[in-house]
Amino acid sequence: MSDETLIPAAAPAAAAAPATQDLVARAAALDAADGLAKLKERFVLPDGVVYLDGNSLGALPAGVTDRLADVASREWGELLIRSWDESEWWTAPERIGDRIAPLVGAAPGQVVVGDSTSVNLFKALVGAARLALPGRTKLLVDATTFPTDGYIAASAARMTGLTVIPVDPGLAAEAIDGDTAVVLLNHVDYRSGRLHDLPALTAAARAAGAITVWDLCHSAGALPVGLDAHGVDLAVGCTYKYLNGGPGSPAYLYVAARHQAGFDSPLPGWNSHAEPFAMTPDYRPADDARRGRVGTPDILSMLALESALDAWDGVSVESVRAKSLALTDFFLECVAAYVPLGKVETVTPAGHAERGSQVSLRTENAREVMGELISRGVIGDFRAPDVLRFGFTPLYVGFADAERAARTLGHIFG
Amino acid sequence: MSDETLIPAAAPAAAAAPATQDLVARAAALDAADGLAKLKERFVLPDGVVYLDGNSLGALPAGVTDRLADVASREWGELLIRSWDESEWWTAPERIGDRIAPLVGAAPGQVVVGDSTSVNLFKALVGAARLALPGRTKLLVDATTFPTDGYIAASAARMTGLTVIPVDPGLAAEAIDGDTAVVLLNHVDYRSGRLHDLPALTAAARAAGAITVWDLCHSAGALPVGLDAHGVDLAVGCTYKYLNGGPGSPAYLYVAARHQAGFDSPLPGWNSHAEPFAMTPDYRPADDARRGRVGTPDILSMLALESALDAWDGVSVESVRAKSLALTDFFLECVAAYVPLGKVETVTPAGHAERGSQVSLRTENAREVMGELISRGVIGDFRAPDVLRFGFTPLYVGFADAERAARTLGHIFG
Repeated sequence: MSDETLIPAAAPAAAAAPATQDLVARAAALDAADGLAKLKERFVLPDGVVYLDGNSLGALPAGVTDRLADVASREWGELLIRSWDESEWWTAPERIGDRIAPLVGAAPGQVVVGDSTSVNLFKALVGAARLALPGRTKLLVDATTFPTDGYIAASAARMTGLTVIPVDPGLAAEAIDGDTAVVLLNHVDYRSGRLHDLPALTAAARAAGAITVWDLCHSAGALPVGLDAHGVDLAVGCTYKYLNGGPGSPAYLYVAARHQAGFDSPLPGWNSHAEPFAMTPDYRPADDARRGRVGTPDILSMLALESALDAWDGVSVESVRAKSLALTDFFLECVAAYVPLGKVETVTPAGHAERGSQVSLRTENAREVMGELISRGVIGDFRAPDVLRFGFTPLYVGFADAERAARTLGHIFG
Repeated sequence: MSDETLIPAAAPAAAAAPATQDLVARAAALDAADGLAKLKERFVLPDGVVYLDGNSLGALPAGVTDRLADVASREWGELLIRSWDESEWWTAPERIGDRIAPLVGAAPGQVVVGDSTSVNLFKALVGAARLALPGRTKLLVDATTFPTDGYIAASAARMTGLTVIPVDPGLAAEAIDGDTAVVLLNHVDYRSGRLHDLPALTAAARAAGAITVWDLCHSAGALPVGLDAHGVDLAVGCTYKYLNGGPGSPAYLYVAARHQAGFDSPLPGWNSHAEPFAMTPDYRPADDARRGRVGTPDILSMLALESALDAWDGVSVESVRAKSLALTDFFLECVAAYVPLGKVETVTPAGHAERGSQVSLRTENAREVMGELISRGVIGDFRAPDVLRFGFTPLYVGFADAERAARTLGHIFG
């Protein structure tokens, strides 16, 4: 990852860094002025823990446990099979998709929920290959991507006759050419936290006649995405990070309205049929986003996710983004103040335009350091070989959390 | 479906059918003698309802609601990300697979849970095509199959170069030849309830050098399957019918141990990697059943399923099968006694060797008749164009239920 911005954790000015009590007071003032601070009440968090791993598993929204009990005991236990209609189970994939749509800048009718991110990526990539211009041969894939994207891309390429070309996402615009069929990119890199330029890269792909597939796992719910505004073709994402849907909650697939009639899924399960209950031997796909559905939707997980999305009521992604940047700025400032010079390197870009909602710090013995942090009540995670990741979910993380996390890290190195 | 056995609902002897009170007494005696009757306590069922739709959505096992509350509030809410290890979330797909394995006659280490049946079928069919002998061109598919199997088979064939050949499952053994790469069959037909001869058809396929893929959705948990004993190559099934896992609960994939090293999944997500957390760009599949995993497992649904499987503690599939046949025999007897001659035709075969755990009756206005039955507290379902389906789940359905269902049907026609 040669393009990472490495910032010394403690710049020379760190010698004049404010004392702990000043940062604690600053954090308190920032929390007091934070218009989103009260949203933390919408979550259940363990006492005494600073949770900075919402970029891996979002926290439990307050209404989910009761909703699950109702789904199990009443909708399943009492209504039984009737709930497919009466409890509106059948339409959950597109209904919940429409709840996610505004968070990723999509008009209604383009997002369906279901399956894992990997499975949706396979649908999207094969679908993209089939939408691509004739004669195009290349599938460009972010070389720094989360592994599953690369593995699934290799399978999709193998099964559609394309050739995978790994690219540095920072140089992807130059790599897109007249042979490029499909471009798969991550909006935010899972390891470094780098935010890639979705508008510019999408525009470059469109100018070259290539189809774009964006992986939004690390951006959706943390920052504006603007799928419609920027002309993205297809996108996938998970719902268990910044959308707080629960462990392994169903992922989603976005197919731009203009492509739905031509979207040719490699997984044409009966749920994607125009008339699924006609149960005809001939396949005729639905003419809308339902074309991205496959098998029977996983209702318990899906309705837990639907309940989890209530945490977004009245919340704009723009306000979340503003707080996210303030949080990560403040965390970096605290790290510079508390952590001895040279102990950590900041992997996450300093520029706001290139930063997602996480801060990644490279250090020796990162696995052990994260274990020690967790034992002291600060939960982030470790990514091989040497990265500490700290995710900032503005819905439930505050500035005092950021200060405590950095101070605890400083103590470990102190 | 030319091979259906059509039995007159009321045979000539029906004129001498026992009176209602005799059948009620017979049912009571059968229930009193039923060694499995007490298993009904392991389920939560609404009062006053006869539930004969467990072949579509199994009833709620008693422990599931509490287990879901614990998973959400403690494992997710309190332990958060740590639960992937501490609560053993990560290993759930193969652990729960090993709970299902004995119910389908598989030794441990060959079944993994996750994804929908449709997605697993795609993995199985593409994997089977890649395991097939070189030069084989045909994918034989049960022509009467549940639609998704046919749709997914067409996609798998298209992406692997095979040609789909629809076959009457009753004649499949004759259709398998030296060009046959893969044979996809249903163990029990979803509409007619016909049980196909898995041992003989598998043997025929093996003799011809073809790979078998069995869909167990309508047999697993209702009757012995014997995957290992009969040398099946690959199989898939859902868990929300006779396994009572909940609406849309995760499906499973069986890959016989002898094929695992050669199983080449079209969905090589990071969960199928030999070292998923190494997060390397190069794909190296696990050397066991985990090869069938794809993305992050859907934990809420998966652990609900795990709890649901507690209903099977100490229960043999053989005892369930014996009761199932007794139930469907008795139901058919009651239908013959209660339903006026000529109102319904029995689609389900009379012979035990050809009968699954459901009874399908063909009638005019089947949709309206089923609506009327449901309004009177007897829940079965309707399958287009003219079939009433009654599923018998021996874990919670008794003989009095069967008698009441048939008597209610008789009243509707009376």
